[in-house]
Amino acid sequence: MTDSLVLSLAKDLIARPSVTPADEGCQQMMADFLAPLGFTIEPLVFHDTTNLWARKGTTGPVFCFAGHTDVVPAGPAEKWNTPPFEPTLIDGMLYGRGAADMKGSIASFMAAVQRFVTDHPDHQGSIAFLITSDEEGPFINGTPKVVETLEARQEKITWCLVGEPSSTAHVGDVVKNGRRGSLTGDLTVFGIQGHVAYPHLAENPVHLAAPAIYELATKQWDNGNEFFPATSFQIANINAGTGASNVIPGELQVQFNFRYSTELTDEQIKQQVEDILTRHGLRYELKWTLSGQPFLTGSGKLVEATQRAIKAITGRETELSTSGGTSDGRFIAPTGAQVIELGPVNATIHKVNECVRVADLETLSDIYYHMMQQLLVKHD
Amino acid sequence: MTDSLVLSLAKDLIARPSVTPADEGCQQMMADFLAPLGFTIEPLVFHDTTNLWARKGTTGPVFCFAGHTDVVPAGPAEKWNTPPFEPTLIDGMLYGRGAADMKGSIASFMAAVQRFVTDHPDHQGSIAFLITSDEEGPFINGTPKVVETLEARQEKITWCLVGEPSSTAHVGDVVKNGRRGSLTGDLTVFGIQGHVAYPHLAENPVHLAAPAIYELATKQWDNGNEFFPATSFQIANINAGTGASNVIPGELQVQFNFRYSTELTDEQIKQQVEDILTRHGLRYELKWTLSGQPFLTGSGKLVEATQRAIKAITGRETELSTSGGTSDGRFIAPTGAQVIELGPVNATIHKVNECVRVADLETLSDIYYHMMQQLLVKHD
Repeated sequence: MTDSLVLSLAKDLIARPSVTPADEGCQQMMADFLAPLGFTIEPLVFHDTTNLWARKGTTGPVFCFAGHTDVVPAGPAEKWNTPPFEPTLIDGMLYGRGAADMKGSIASFMAAVQRFVTDHPDHQGSIAFLITSDEEGPFINGTPKVVETLEARQEKITWCLVGEPSSTAHVGDVVKNGRRGSLTGDLTVFGIQGHVAYPHLAENPVHLAAPAIYELATKQWDNGNEFFPATSFQIANINAGTGASNVIPGELQVQFNFRYSTELTDEQIKQQVEDILTRHGLRYELKWTLSGQPFLTGSGKLVEATQRAIKAITGRETELSTSGGTSDGRFIAPTGAQVIELGPVNATIHKVNECVRVADLETLSDIYYHMMQQLLVKHD
Repeated sequence: MTDSLVLSLAKDLIARPSVTPADEGCQQMMADFLAPLGFTIEPLVFHDTTNLWARKGTTGPVFCFAGHTDVVPAGPAEKWNTPPFEPTLIDGMLYGRGAADMKGSIASFMAAVQRFVTDHPDHQGSIAFLITSDEEGPFINGTPKVVETLEARQEKITWCLVGEPSSTAHVGDVVKNGRRGSLTGDLTVFGIQGHVAYPHLAENPVHLAAPAIYELATKQWDNGNEFFPATSFQIANINAGTGASNVIPGELQVQFNFRYSTELTDEQIKQQVEDILTRHGLRYELKWTLSGQPFLTGSGKLVEATQRAIKAITGRETELSTSGGTSDGRFIAPTGAQVIELGPVNATIHKVNECVRVADLETLSDIYYHMMQQLLVKHD
C-alpha cells in the first residue's frame, strides 16, 4: 500500500530536523508542490528566519493558511521510542517531532488545496500560505515581519486558518476563535540593605512588597466574558537576598504575567498594577512587555464555515475556545482578518514521542477542503 | 619613647595575619606572657582550630576574659592606607586588621592582668583566659568546644568579660549585658508547577504563601522588655521560578531570621510560625537552625563592677545594651556565668583601615584592672 498524499507530505516534512529557526528545506518542498498548482511563490527571509508567502489568485477574499515549519527541540533522543526525525508509523499513529505541531496540519492543508484547485479551477478569491520557521522561537523575524510586509503593500487576509493543534480528544472537538492577551511585568522593589541584627537601619523590600503582592495575587481582575475565561495573574519568578541568612536584601525582583481577556486592555492592567504599587508606598521600577493583545473572532463567515465543515465531516458540534497559550494568530488578527485555529489533537505536542493519528490528518484535510468549498465557491 | 606594654602587645598580635581559623602564634605569644605570671596553660586544639584556656588560681570565683585571636580577612589590601598586618601608629591611632576586633582588648586585658597580679599577688579566686581562633568563622571548634570541655570537668566561670568592641563613640559608653537570640527558618512552600496559560492546572506557591508572608512580615512578635528591643523577623532570601516568564513555579523557598528577646523562647516562635503556615493551608517543609539562645546578665556583681569601673576611670555612666549581632558570650552564658561585653569603639571593625585609639586601650586596661580589684580583692 502506498502512502496517501497527506501521509507522504507529512513524512517528508517530519524527516527534516527544522528546529527553530532552521527550515531545512521544508518551505522549498512546499513551494515545489504549490507552484505547479498556480501559486506565486515569495520567500521572505529576515535575518536567520525563512518565511514563505504563497498565493494563488489576485482578487479577494483571501483565505490564508498560517503555520510554521519549525519545531521545538526533540529533547533527549534516548527517551524517544523512535528517532524523532525519522517519521515512523505504528498502529495508525505517525511519530516524529512536529507530527502534531504542526507539520501534520500543513500536510493536510497542502493535500486539501491540491484537491480543491483540481475540483474548482475557477474558485473565487485567493488561497494563500503564510509559513514561518520562527513560531516556536523569539517570534521576531517570522509572522510579524511577514504581516508588516503585507500591510505595507495593502495586501489583506480575509480569513485566516491557523493550523495549530487545537483539538483535545478528537479532531475538530475544539477550535480556537481567539486568544487571551499576554502581558509580562518585571518589577524591582527597592529597600535598603542591612544586617538582620540592625533592622531599624534597613528596609526589607520583601516585607514592604508583601501587602502589594498579596493584593495582586488575590485580586479578581475581571470575570471574563462569553468567549474568555477571567483574566489571570501569575507570579513566574520572585527573587531577593544575597544567600546569607544575616543580610536584609536591598532589592526584590518579581516577574509576573497576565493572560487577559477582551474585558481589559493592557493599558488598564498597567494602570491598575501601578496604582496598587503606589498605594502601598513602594519605591519601584516596572518594565512591561506585551507579547500579544487578545483577539477574538466571535462570529462571521469563517466561524460558520468551520463549524459546518466539522459537523459535516465528523458529525461533531465543535467548541469555540480562547483558552491556552499564544499563537501567531495574534499577529494576524490586528490586520482585521477573521482568525480561527484548527488542527489535530494536541496531547503530545512539545513532548517526547510526539505523534498524530494518520486518520485524523485525513479528516482534517477533508474539513479544510470543506471550508474552502464554503468560502471560495459560489453556491448558486 | 618606648611603647607602653598595652601598645607593644597589641602591635605584636596585629602583626600576625591570623585570619580565621589561623592563629599564627598569637596564643603561643599569650601563653609565653601568662605562664611567668602564674597561669596554667592549656592549649585546646579541635580540628583546624587552636584555643587557649589559661587559668591562674584553683579556687572560685573565676573571673574569665573571653576573646578571639582570629580576624576577618583584610579585603583588598590596596584599599588600606597602611598594610593591614603591619601595625601602624598615626596621630594616636593604631591601624591594622584586628586592632579593634579584638586584639586591642586582648592586649589591654593582658597588661591589666600583669599589673593586677603584681599589685595583688594574693588575690581571691581565679583569673582565666578563654581564647579562640574561630570566632569570626563557623564557631564550631572554638568557644563551644572549650565550654564543653570545661563543663565536662565541672570547671565553672563565675564572671565572664568578653572583649568585643562594645563602645560606640567613647570607650565604655556602651556595655553589652546580653544578646538577642538568633533563629533561622528555611521554608519551602509546595505548589504545582504548570504553564501560565493553564493556571487552573497549577497551584502557584507564591500566591498561596502571599497571605502568610504578609502576616509574618507585619506581626508584632513581642514588645521587647527593659533590656531587649522587640523581637524582629526578617526575610533574608526568597526564591521561586524557573527564570521563564510562562511557567508557574512549583516551589517557593523562603529563608527568614528571628532576632528575639527573652520574652519569647525559640520553641514559642517555631510554634507561632507553624500555626500561621498551617492556618493558611500551606503544604510546606520548614527546617530550623538555632544560632544562639538569647542571654541576659540583668544585674549582679559583674554588672555593678563594670559600671563602677567605667565611672571611676572615665567619669561616664555606661549604657547597658543587648542590641547588635551575636557573640561568643551566647555559648558561655548557658553555663550559668554572668556575661558582660566591654571593648573599644566598634566604628571601624570588619572595614578597611580598622583602627583603635591607643589611649582608649590604656583606658580599657585601667577599667579591666578596676573590675578585677572589685571582684577579686577582699575589701575589709
